[in-house]
Amino acid sequence: MKLLYEGKAKQIYETENPNEILMHYKDDATAFNGLKKDQIHNKGILNNKISTMIFGYLKDNGIETHLIKTLNERDQLCRKVEILPLEVIVRNVFAGSASKRLGIEEGVPCKEPIFEICYKCDELNDPLINDTHAIAMGIATREELNRVWELTAQINQLLIKLFDSVGVRLIDFKIEFGKDADGNIMLADEISPDSCRLWDKDTNEKLDKDRFRREMGNVEEAYIEICKRLTKEEA
Amino acid sequence: MKLLYEGKAKQIYETENPNEILMHYKDDATAFNGLKKDQIHNKGILNNKISTMIFGYLKDNGIETHLIKTLNERDQLCRKVEILPLEVIVRNVFAGSASKRLGIEEGVPCKEPIFEICYKCDELNDPLINDTHAIAMGIATREELNRVWELTAQINQLLIKLFDSVGVRLIDFKIEFGKDADGNIMLADEISPDSCRLWDKDTNEKLDKDRFRREMGNVEEAYIEICKRLTKEEA
Repeated sequence: MKLLYEGKAKQIYETENPNEILMHYKDDATAFNGLKKDQIHNKGILNNKISTMIFGYLKDNGIETHLIKTLNERDQLCRKVEILPLEVIVRNVFAGSASKRLGIEEGVPCKEPIFEICYKCDELNDPLINDTHAIAMGIATREELNRVWELTAQINQLLIKLFDSVGVRLIDFKIEFGKDADGNIMLADEISPDSCRLWDKDTNEKLDKDRFRREMGNVEEAYIEICKRLTKEEA
Repeated sequence: MKLLYEGKAKQIYETENPNEILMHYKDDATAFNGLKKDQIHNKGILNNKISTMIFGYLKDNGIETHLIKTLNERDQLCRKVEILPLEVIVRNVFAGSASKRLGIEEGVPCKEPIFEICYKCDELNDPLINDTHAIAMGIATREELNRVWELTAQINQLLIKLFDSVGVRLIDFKIEFGKDADGNIMLADEISPDSCRLWDKDTNEKLDKDRFRREMGNVEEAYIEICKRLTKEEA
């Protein structure tokens, strides 16, 4: 199979069907725009399981996604979409870079959810932009952004509910959207502890990639814990 | 008179009327969040004249402002308002920090105007935010922001027209808004070559504070030129 694209945590392969791709989950982990690099044992397998569960839940609740079916431990068959070069970030609680930039202590709840977009561009360090930048730069249209925000608000409500039901606070998360040949916007990429901040509801223990970023140890264990809680099975 | 507040380029004094303040224009100039400091000869006088002219033009075109009357060479009598801690920036052409952050050459026109807000906070370096940050942080309400954007769009159209009529391209500008005791949002602060990028329409010569920031020389002359063109009189 021909490799179409290699990202930091996944590879995208061509399939026999021109409208479908294969998404392969790796164990590679990076942070700080690639400055920190390592592997997290079994991360690819865990994230594939977690993201499969979450995308299925979202689909059951009316959110269109690129996922067609999960093929095996590390591979998903997905619709081929043109990924919008935007990281869409939702914050329910101040943490991470937002806490630093805005001078607000980590853990302070947002009065209303924060919706951000960053322009996906490694050389520029994925700068924060807003809708008017995206339109002025020709990255997206007003109509596409409206659809992105509509879906994002729905996804946030659904994910808060899902994680709450397994004793987890959804602090923030990053998603990406793709556009099919008809211009249809749908959820793409993955949703996993790589792309979310997830804190245990009772202890505030971090169960996400911050354990890797901040050298807190028990990284794989955190991913296993999230997988167990979401799939109700041993990881 | 009691000094209420000293900014980088202006001082605000109490007056006998509790609903009014006196705004005094200094010659001090700073750049890069105060790292570069100097004086520009007569800048206070020139900016007072320029801003008086522009605020008068905007008022004549239906934009409410804090300016009551210009008292003398360096002083304006203004309504006392609570300044929203936001720098509202409009960009019609990519330049300055936006060009650097977004990797787009200075001078490239924006497909649509860019509207930005930065959280006014020297210690945090005035970080770029969006409406959802401002709401989440309790800086402004959705209704206040809607009014800010409505006024900002009108002001941009009016300023483009005004500057075009005197042979100047309005590249970008920064404005601030205040709120009176009734919650009424109005234009405050100043509009001058300190707060705009202004390029000669024919030669692209910079006629604004970038001459100071970038050590280009003829800084006072640029302010005099803008003043002359706008007021049709010798500065």
